Amino acid sequence: MTSSAREVPSSTEGSDADTRFLEDFRSMSAFGATPSGGVDRQAATEPDIAQRRWLAELLEEKGMRVVYDRIGNQFGLVERVPGAPYVVVGSHMDSQPTAGRFDGAYGVLAAAHAVDRAARSDEAEGASPEYNLAVVNWFNEEGSRFAPSMMGSAVYTGKLPLETALAVRDRAGVSVGEALAPTGFLGETDGPEAAFCAEIHIEQGRVLERSGTTIGLVEACWAARKYRVVVNGEQAHSGATVMEDRRDALLGASLLVVAARELADRFPGVLHTAVGSMDVYPNSPVVVASKVELLLDLRADDEEVLAEADRILREQVIRVEETAKVSVDLHLSHAWGIDPYQPEGVSLARSGAERLGLSHQRIRTVAGHDSVNMKGHVPTVMLFVPSVEGISHNEGEYTEDGDMLAGLAMLTEVVRRLGAGELPSTGVYDPAAQG
Amino acid sequence: MTSSAREVPSSTEGSDADTRFLEDFRSMSAFGATPSGGVDRQAATEPDIAQRRWLAELLEEKGMRVVYDRIGNQFGLVERVPGAPYVVVGSHMDSQPTAGRFDGAYGVLAAAHAVDRAARSDEAEGASPEYNLAVVNWFNEEGSRFAPSMMGSAVYTGKLPLETALAVRDRAGVSVGEALAPTGFLGETDGPEAAFCAEIHIEQGRVLERSGTTIGLVEACWAARKYRVVVNGEQAHSGATVMEDRRDALLGASLLVVAARELADRFPGVLHTAVGSMDVYPNSPVVVASKVELLLDLRADDEEVLAEADRILREQVIRVEETAKVSVDLHLSHAWGIDPYQPEGVSLARSGAERLGLSHQRIRTVAGHDSVNMKGHVPTVMLFVPSVEGISHNEGEYTEDGDMLAGLAMLTEVVRRLGAGELPSTGVYDPAAQG
Repeated sequence: MTSSAREVPSSTEGSDADTRFLEDFRSMSAFGATPSGGVDRQAATEPDIAQRRWLAELLEEKGMRVVYDRIGNQFGLVERVPGAPYVVVGSHMDSQPTAGRFDGAYGVLAAAHAVDRAARSDEAEGASPEYNLAVVNWFNEEGSRFAPSMMGSAVYTGKLPLETALAVRDRAGVSVGEALAPTGFLGETDGPEAAFCAEIHIEQGRVLERSGTTIGLVEACWAARKYRVVVNGEQAHSGATVMEDRRDALLGASLLVVAARELADRFPGVLHTAVGSMDVYPNSPVVVASKVELLLDLRADDEEVLAEADRILREQVIRVEETAKVSVDLHLSHAWGIDPYQPEGVSLARSGAERLGLSHQRIRTVAGHDSVNMKGHVPTVMLFVPSVEGISHNEGEYTEDGDMLAGLAMLTEVVRRLGAGELPSTGVYDPAAQG
Repeated sequence: MTSSAREVPSSTEGSDADTRFLEDFRSMSAFGATPSGGVDRQAATEPDIAQRRWLAELLEEKGMRVVYDRIGNQFGLVERVPGAPYVVVGSHMDSQPTAGRFDGAYGVLAAAHAVDRAARSDEAEGASPEYNLAVVNWFNEEGSRFAPSMMGSAVYTGKLPLETALAVRDRAGVSVGEALAPTGFLGETDGPEAAFCAEIHIEQGRVLERSGTTIGLVEACWAARKYRVVVNGEQAHSGATVMEDRRDALLGASLLVVAARELADRFPGVLHTAVGSMDVYPNSPVVVASKVELLLDLRADDEEVLAEADRILREQVIRVEETAKVSVDLHLSHAWGIDPYQPEGVSLARSGAERLGLSHQRIRTVAGHDSVNMKGHVPTVMLFVPSVEGISHNEGEYTEDGDMLAGLAMLTEVVRRLGAGELPSTGVYDPAAQG
């Protein structure tokens, strides 16, 4: 549980610029602030809307042009090469309910400062960059109010139809389109054309902290299968109905939660499983539940393990149907393999870290990120900074100032290199030709 | 599953009066009607309020004076003996979400007709009754919107402080007091003084149907212990957090649901257990739940079994705390023993059934009823009519017209006898002196 004795890096850029970043970070963390030091900024709620207005001002102050696409992704554009596509850099500012201040928001603010720094140094040095630069604040990465998660980047990359996303409703029945319409964040274009993408994020794990490393060079994400599960039983009086007549949807759902955990315990360290969300109908003290809907995830560091876990899960579903006398519908809502980030991007980032003298290591991400969507679209660089004790999706989430500033310097370096054309762009990029 | 070949009784009163009852029953069932033939009339929602207005008119048309007490119990008074206390006869018209048409509502409408019939025959016969008569529609028996259940009768009998009940909030944050204030159903008195109570209800089980009996003479209720359970874990990222670091409140809650079912299976037929309601926080797809609240019931036909089940439950709670790394708080919210209904009331009802030529048997109730509160307050008679297939808290709940009419005749007989003073009243009633 103890943190390593790693020395947190000191600033690598002028202290004024770093001080401004930390001041901005504190201002930003006031939106949706909770009494316990966290934030609650679910997508398109008041604090998320207010924070996006604040970010628009900040980007405009830095001379960027602020635009929105049709799903409400927020971009700050630096156009320096007429007609050229963009290095799109950012993350998301929406949060889980009672979440930490760093998840996503750090990556957007770091992008705003990194793009500004990179553009200004390129200009000061008289460089001839090949690409334009864009900050992005992706809409609804968290998915807690509107499922699925990573919605804005999924629409941007064509993985999710725009109409489907706009029609998604929250538990109160409000659709994404209805929530966004009055905010002014629904644009009339598909957003800037990307040539590359970069994202920095807190690790949300303990790998960097344990090894005493400042920068994680993300080489791949864990494979995942995400299910929406509907358990169908029958309403009955929860007192009077004899036990053997009951078709209890909540019993069926509970057996699935337990089965999911036991599945993870069969593949220690390689498989993570979770049920975080469960809705019970009619959810009354004296009624046997007729319907329970839950979201069940399997994530694995090994695609064969994931396939085997999936097979066992389906066996367990049959056992649960028999035990609780219910029927279970499994709807696969997301699935992805262990797709690597482009190795050339990892090499570019490693070379940048070496130039800056920052300790670094290759790492995999278990959590999904907008960059997971983007890496299937354009070459993408994903960076991590350490999370204290790996705590995340929790108000106690924490990253040291020094690590945030090191990450900012690192992201600036990556943005400059991508902007300069150090990587082949999508158009000419041919992984097969790279050997 | 097949119904017995029992012949459903034909009417025992004039067919016009019975036709009016069945017409009223159909009118009543339109309030909050659902497409599948059930009703949704949770306490103090629009359909419940509209139905109460309809009932007030019906009672006034029958010449009764309609009054409300401080918790919104609705009474229709027939005052024929100045200053005398009342035989209070009724049930509840609120329902579970997507419930059946008979649960509670049948008992209130039967009370309205029975009190009217009894008062008119007494008057026609020139009888000299000793007690006044009152119809009652208890507020919030179901407890689905505002917990606990049986709220109105609990306040009336002094088991629940008025202020506590008025302050209870639904999931949207609306209190009982706030929901009732604009309805005009909050009175300024404690309601009429009761000398006796009678209630008729559908059985919600299969005992009468299986034995081919028309009237159940309820002699006792099953013992029960009801817990509000809070499972405390810690928010974490449901993907990134390693499994052994998780303190998953939803896993803990699910283990408890399974443990409760296994407990019932250890005492077949004698113990019923249930978890019908579960609220998960933050209930997000990618967050390990930090808190789950659920309601867990144990009901037994044997107090020793209940005590043993309770002991095992507490052992299971410790096991769950260790397995899921959570803490579990058990709050006992209700408990009652196998308290008999007053045996003299059962005898009075049996004698009434015999006079009417209705088949009858002694029975116990597993479900709670307002009469369970009332029997600790005044001598109380509880009657059942058959439920087809025992289906209840379900839109498919059904009782035959003939059984409803037989029950109405039976209730009328009981009301007349109680009104005539056939039982010793509370004031002079001394069970010890009865031997």
